[in-house]
Amino acid sequence: MSDQQWMLRALQLARQGLYSTEPNPRVGCVLVRDAQVVGEGWHVRAGEGHAEVNALAQAGELARGATAYVTLEPCSHFGKTPPCADALIRAGVSRVVVGMQDPNPQVAGQGLARLQAAGIAVTSGVQEADARALNPGFIKRMQQGLPWVRLKLAMSLDGRTAMASGESQWITGPAARADVQRWRTRSGAVISGADSVLLDDSALTVRQEQLGLPAAEAALAAERQPLRVLIDGRLRVPLQQRLFQLAGPTLVATLSDQRQSDYQAVGSELLALPNADASQVDLHRLLTVLAQRGCNEVLVESGARLAAAFWQAGLVDELLVYMAPRLLGSSARPLLELPFTQMSEARDVHIEELRAVGNDWLIRARPAAT
Amino acid sequence: MSDQQWMLRALQLARQGLYSTEPNPRVGCVLVRDAQVVGEGWHVRAGEGHAEVNALAQAGELARGATAYVTLEPCSHFGKTPPCADALIRAGVSRVVVGMQDPNPQVAGQGLARLQAAGIAVTSGVQEADARALNPGFIKRMQQGLPWVRLKLAMSLDGRTAMASGESQWITGPAARADVQRWRTRSGAVISGADSVLLDDSALTVRQEQLGLPAAEAALAAERQPLRVLIDGRLRVPLQQRLFQLAGPTLVATLSDQRQSDYQAVGSELLALPNADASQVDLHRLLTVLAQRGCNEVLVESGARLAAAFWQAGLVDELLVYMAPRLLGSSARPLLELPFTQMSEARDVHIEELRAVGNDWLIRARPAAT
Repeated sequence: MSDQQWMLRALQLARQGLYSTEPNPRVGCVLVRDAQVVGEGWHVRAGEGHAEVNALAQAGELARGATAYVTLEPCSHFGKTPPCADALIRAGVSRVVVGMQDPNPQVAGQGLARLQAAGIAVTSGVQEADARALNPGFIKRMQQGLPWVRLKLAMSLDGRTAMASGESQWITGPAARADVQRWRTRSGAVISGADSVLLDDSALTVRQEQLGLPAAEAALAAERQPLRVLIDGRLRVPLQQRLFQLAGPTLVATLSDQRQSDYQAVGSELLALPNADASQVDLHRLLTVLAQRGCNEVLVESGARLAAAFWQAGLVDELLVYMAPRLLGSSARPLLELPFTQMSEARDVHIEELRAVGNDWLIRARPAAT
Repeated sequence: MSDQQWMLRALQLARQGLYSTEPNPRVGCVLVRDAQVVGEGWHVRAGEGHAEVNALAQAGELARGATAYVTLEPCSHFGKTPPCADALIRAGVSRVVVGMQDPNPQVAGQGLARLQAAGIAVTSGVQEADARALNPGFIKRMQQGLPWVRLKLAMSLDGRTAMASGESQWITGPAARADVQRWRTRSGAVISGADSVLLDDSALTVRQEQLGLPAAEAALAAERQPLRVLIDGRLRVPLQQRLFQLAGPTLVATLSDQRQSDYQAVGSELLALPNADASQVDLHRLLTVLAQRGCNEVLVESGARLAAAFWQAGLVDELLVYMAPRLLGSSARPLLELPFTQMSEARDVHIEELRAVGNDWLIRARPAAT
């Protein structure tokens, strides 16, 4: 097998942590000696062994002289666990192949340098695009201090979300809702706005029974709930709403924190994040705070106005548009409140994926480079 | 090879007539003797040999004792050519397998009966769904006296067609435009309305160089232009527009035929088709006229209002929605002028196909059964 093929196996292992490693990256490791796998590991959850350490534990003495395939450069610093580079050196590994360097510009390359200094052969950038795709949020947080923001929308074939009256109902089917649940689960935070929480009494929780995941992944996913974030500048959402009543951490981003204690009483955190003229919650500041708290990926599930605010501020990395096979008509509500008047304001997107989800379709797109 | 496999070959032959058989159906025929093909034929254009006759000509004496695979039941009546059933009998074919019966309820089964009466074994309904899909328009015209109506629309990802000001430009790319040209080419008529012809000075012609077809098909396609139909109740479109100036037949559906001679002078036909209160052109009557003139498939390429009128009248069989990867915003023009106020008015569609066309996407859908 080639380096590429072994790395594909390591990537496969890493993906098992898709729903559980936040705030850490998903990482997989395969140890190969004489064309035989002698150890495999992946990072399961923060605070526990990294992928390399798990693979080394499985290999034991067989690691000596082996090649380690790791999806991400081994760390060289003490975090919650000792540096993986040192563990690989101690185990006597003879070669290390990595998918990508550490995205943190302050430590990138240090793990590889440490290995090389110990006489270990090093190759970097094998299946790099796949390795990067595993951890868009971790990479962005390390490089820009912001999480990877996905904006989830559901619309009809003619681009509408609800009737003008506000009359609304699930326009997408159960398969699409399960898919949304999985995007929630892999996120560090789920963000919504007062309008939609008031309209739907949404709880923003992950409902394990709706995930439709294999048992092992479902069990891991169930261990943590993403932080539920409500953007509510004027504190319009009553504390009796399900959002505040269901278990799990919640954060309310608002304009002033005068009612801090009321929110503490229901176990919620109130955070004042006004923008310059104190008219709106500063979305960039909010995302910065979430990144500081370790959120790699964030899912925005809001109404057309807040969604458009994220979009217009250039904060959206990925659009998840669920399209239902229905025509809601020209009086119905728009997908995004973007009151462009000239064609020159129109924004191009790059459609990365378009796939059937039950009777609906998911259009996954990114803003086109401008 | 099985009956199914030979029929697939016959279907493949039939498809070569996709752009040229109107008003006739696309039909293919394979003659097989001792598991060898002894003759193949397809219907090329109206007035010329039917598929069976072409295949028999190729087979000559080898047709004796052969099995004929024909995508459509052989005709039993004298049209522009003698009955194919008789030709098969005369040639000494021993078995006939057909994809589907003749859709014309007045002659369905007569061809098969004639063959059986001559001692020929007959099997019907092999790969019937494929056989039907070849000729949706011919089938509908024979059964309902109406053509198969495709409604072509182009929209942004958020379901908009142009800016509110009317500012517009190609929102879809060259591959999508070539695809539209191919839908035009296979149609008996292309219908548009005064609004869009005035806005774009559209000619509705097939531009051979844009078809992107293999040479043989392109040459066949070039032999005929679909009838270009303008719906212009108040005769707002000047006779100087390209629609009237370019070669090929045009028909103007309007409320009164007083200006008949003006239109005749530019080679166009004016047809008064008012609805009951004479406020609008009667779309059902127009389609009936087109069917009587042999149009099997019709492509509607119009603005949001006329398109919605066809849709609301239940006259649309298929939606062709080209979706460009762009957001035009919430002030931009809607896909269809359907001013629904209640969710109960919303119409479900069945998405039959969703495929990339260059940078755009084609969503091919049918109205869901109500």
